[in-house]
Amino acid sequence: MVNLKITSPVLREFLAELLGTFVLTTIGCSVNAATTVSKSGAVAGAIGPWGWGLALTAAIYVCGGVSGGHVNPAVTLGMATIGKLSWIKVPYYFAAQYIGAFFGALVTYLVYHESIKAHFGDQLQTLGVNGTAAIFGTLPNPNVSIGTCFLDQVVCVGFFLLLIQAITDDRNMDCPKGLIPIAIGVADLTLMAFAFGYNCGAPVNPARDLGPRLLSSIVGYGGEVFSVRNYNYFWVPIVATHIGGIIGSWIYVLFISLHWPVQSYDIENELQTNPSRK
Amino acid sequence: MVNLKITSPVLREFLAELLGTFVLTTIGCSVNAATTVSKSGAVAGAIGPWGWGLALTAAIYVCGGVSGGHVNPAVTLGMATIGKLSWIKVPYYFAAQYIGAFFGALVTYLVYHESIKAHFGDQLQTLGVNGTAAIFGTLPNPNVSIGTCFLDQVVCVGFFLLLIQAITDDRNMDCPKGLIPIAIGVADLTLMAFAFGYNCGAPVNPARDLGPRLLSSIVGYGGEVFSVRNYNYFWVPIVATHIGGIIGSWIYVLFISLHWPVQSYDIENELQTNPSRK
Amino acid sequence: MVNLKITSPVLREFLAELLGTFVLTTIGCSVNAATTVSKSGAVAGAIGPWGWGLALTAAIYVCGGVSGGHVNPAVTLGMATIGKLSWIKVPYYFAAQYIGAFFGALVTYLVYHESIKAHFGDQLQTLGVNGTAAIFGTLPNPNVSIGTCFLDQVVCVGFFLLLIQAITDDRNMDCPKGLIPIAIGVADLTLMAFAFGYNCGAPVNPARDLGPRLLSSIVGYGGEVFSVRNYNYFWVPIVATHIGGIIGSWIYVLFISLHWPVQSYDIENELQTNPSRK
Amino acid sequence: MVNLKITSPVLREFLAELLGTFVLTTIGCSVNAATTVSKSGAVAGAIGPWGWGLALTAAIYVCGGVSGGHVNPAVTLGMATIGKLSWIKVPYYFAAQYIGAFFGALVTYLVYHESIKAHFGDQLQTLGVNGTAAIFGTLPNPNVSIGTCFLDQVVCVGFFLLLIQAITDDRNMDCPKGLIPIAIGVADLTLMAFAFGYNCGAPVNPARDLGPRLLSSIVGYGGEVFSVRNYNYFWVPIVATHIGGIIGSWIYVLFISLHWPVQSYDIENELQTNPSRK
Repeated sequence: MVNLKITSPVLREFLAELLGTFVLTTIGCSVNAATTVSKSGAVAGAIGPWGWGLALTAAIYVCGGVSGGHVNPAVTLGMATIGKLSWIKVPYYFAAQYIGAFFGALVTYLVYHESIKAHFGDQLQTLGVNGTAAIFGTLPNPNVSIGTCFLDQVVCVGFFLLLIQAITDDRNMDCPKGLIPIAIGVADLTLMAFAFGYNCGAPVNPARDLGPRLLSSIVGYGGEVFSVRNYNYFWVPIVATHIGGIIGSWIYVLFISLHWPVQSYDIENELQTNPSRK
Repeated sequence: MVNLKITSPVLREFLAELLGTFVLTTIGCSVNAATTVSKSGAVAGAIGPWGWGLALTAAIYVCGGVSGGHVNPAVTLGMATIGKLSWIKVPYYFAAQYIGAFFGALVTYLVYHESIKAHFGDQLQTLGVNGTAAIFGTLPNPNVSIGTCFLDQVVCVGFFLLLIQAITDDRNMDCPKGLIPIAIGVADLTLMAFAFGYNCGAPVNPARDLGPRLLSSIVGYGGEVFSVRNYNYFWVPIVATHIGGIIGSWIYVLFISLHWPVQSYDIENELQTNPSRK
Repeated sequence: MVNLKITSPVLREFLAELLGTFVLTTIGCSVNAATTVSKSGAVAGAIGPWGWGLALTAAIYVCGGVSGGHVNPAVTLGMATIGKLSWIKVPYYFAAQYIGAFFGALVTYLVYHESIKAHFGDQLQTLGVNGTAAIFGTLPNPNVSIGTCFLDQVVCVGFFLLLIQAITDDRNMDCPKGLIPIAIGVADLTLMAFAFGYNCGAPVNPARDLGPRLLSSIVGYGGEVFSVRNYNYFWVPIVATHIGGIIGSWIYVLFISLHWPVQSYDIENELQTNPSRK
Repeated sequence: MVNLKITSPVLREFLAELLGTFVLTTIGCSVNAATTVSKSGAVAGAIGPWGWGLALTAAIYVCGGVSGGHVNPAVTLGMATIGKLSWIKVPYYFAAQYIGAFFGALVTYLVYHESIKAHFGDQLQTLGVNGTAAIFGTLPNPNVSIGTCFLDQVVCVGFFLLLIQAITDDRNMDCPKGLIPIAIGVADLTLMAFAFGYNCGAPVNPARDLGPRLLSSIVGYGGEVFSVRNYNYFWVPIVATHIGGIIGSWIYVLFISLHWPVQSYDIENELQTNPSRK
């Protein structure tokens, strides 16, 4: 099989991010679909956050060792702005993430379209009592303004990235590599979905939001998934998440990571990797 | 006690897989029984996936150190097709798994038959408002076709094995051995049950499905557990799971594990086990 | 403070088991009380098992490093019968566990008696629509016979001890010491409560059952907590749990731990503790 | 960026505790807001405790490596009374915690005020069928007396600190540093919220209670958040939590940590840090 072996880091990372985002999106959207078609009511609020959080755990186990397991453009951008990712990687990480998310949503559609139509009618509807488009791209709660949605996602992704920076900083609580996917999935994304799921469904991730939105538009929901609120919502999960990701990453730098006492850390580090100096 | 000690690896692994699958199936089917007889409604959707996932965690803690903790023929086959299990082990792993699952379901029946009959009548029924056979073998949702069930289980077990290959690949996120049962139970099986529980109850595991189905047929549900949909469902959890397991394992190989930079890994590895070379 | 320091291992272990069982029982019974007085309905079935499981996690973190963290006579007996605990420790472990459980239930009563009476009347009642005694000692479901309760607890505690033996056997999946409380709490007790909570409330632990039952009898529920079903239930959680604990421990020995290839393990072990031999 | 680098430990710890408590409070209060505005009913009881517990996990990952991750004055005081924190740090830890909690509640208010008003009316109300003040500062259940609330919080925070002392004592179960945030979040705070959430909403943390209470008073709930029960409740979460924290810490000392066999531990310790002595 040596002839199939890829040695280009770019291609390896591209495939890893694509597969990881595909895992996240297929599973997450399928959890949405399952609670929607089984009409779980309030219980859906106790299932969805666990489903999306554990889906992120799974995605990071799949690709983390190759690409870092961002599976989210807001993470990639946040990492780049604080110097933890080379800017040259940003474009192909982004491409992989959007492609993976689009095809993930396609798999969810293939597995669940029959059930959706059986419960809500053959004509797929975006909004209203038979609306199911929020299985794919998120939609704003009718009670909230676009301004609140925007603020909600800046805050939500701000915390999301703040926590990712903390969990992956081994000078802080030293979370072991093999535990990181669980910490980020459960103590970060699940938590964000519990705390910020009400206003606009906690998109968190622009690829996970736009990819499925585009897919849903193509398979039968039509242009309404974009035109909702006069085309004044669909861009919010794209723009606000990137802004939040940058802010959250920098808050971690300015409050915590800039101030580690460098020297003692370096010495301790060297002793660990070079025990003969002890 | 030395005279009871078994030295044959085949027999040790056979006993371990049998006990592990017995643990998984007794506990999992008992969780199904408990939510069924207590008529938990939508809340059952928040209990069942945790129950089955943690039951797999438990099963892997019981037998993982001896046999690898497959407790599922689709896992065994997936491992064999990518060279992580000797083909010679497949037949006796399969036998142990089906036997363990059958007797696991028997224990569930013994513990719960009184409650089932008290709530749903002395004549055990497969389908309908008093149907309870899905405590044991899974049944398809009336709203979905067999084709959807088949696709559902190929996708579900595809992801299930993809994640197992990722979690157990120490070149990826380096999940510690003692954490693997939790990662596979919660960030894989629980997740699959959340995402793919609607269409046909997330069988995932042909032994866990066929063993209990056979047991339920014998203890009073009769042939209907096989004849449902004109004998056109019971084979789906058997065939689709194996296909999904092979596909998922190969996707991991083709997207991730084939492309590890071999040499540097070997060197790093050697340094770890042979620190004097540093 | 040196003059308060206890050097007797017996007294240290006694205090540790007492405190650990106190933690388990206060918290567990308080979770029962909270779901009862808030009339959580089916949702209680998604809260109680997590509450009791995490309470056991907490209890083992409190006393595990001193006494092993049994906090349950069935665990102590199971350990003794397979040679993992000296028989001489059994009596004082038992005493500590029953005392800790009794006072734990007292604290729950003090914190919740006002709420219980506000919702269910000043006269505390064991059974019926205003019955709340099951906050303390367990009670059998009206639909099941004593025989089923007995079998239920033999099976439940059989699995409970089988899993404890597996999780604490470092030749198996090598669960790190610091993770053991979580594994036993969540992947064992929470799981048992999901799977076996219906028939008789998953007592699992004779001290946790008898101590609170006695307390509830004294504070106002009267003799009915013992006389229920003509004095033919209260002994079941005491006797069946010990039998189950012995059976489960021995199943682990006979299926798994008796057959570890001794020699290679010893060598590997020695290398770990004595690296200079490498 | 070297010119922004802070070298004063006091300022570093102040910023870390402020940020950590901000994380805890924003996320926790937002979970309260989400379950309140989505009218989750009994399901809120299965979401809130996970939300607050995981929010504490997140907070400790953010600041634990700098300040110890107290994010709670009762923890800081408990640590100081048993000599695990210098008394000189208590004042600025307290200040950081109250400031962080106040601003955390402000962010929750900004993200959710629109939804709160849409569901419960433009005039924010503390109590009654449209009362929502408990999103911020806790309120006592109408069924219980102040005495019960006081006892409830002494007991609750007593256990909370007892468990923190146990989990962070590496002579006990040796919980790895990177797992401590999860153990304290889930096996301590989540558990306390399950067990003691009924009587007065499990404040646990005086900063998390007073800061949001003050904020809610300012943004429109008015003085009633303080005057409820004739000014005879708001001080309970402040006073009782500190008393509980001291008692719980000392119980751990008196039952467990005072009695570790000192010498053998020291020797073992020295071998670990100084392997050449082996």
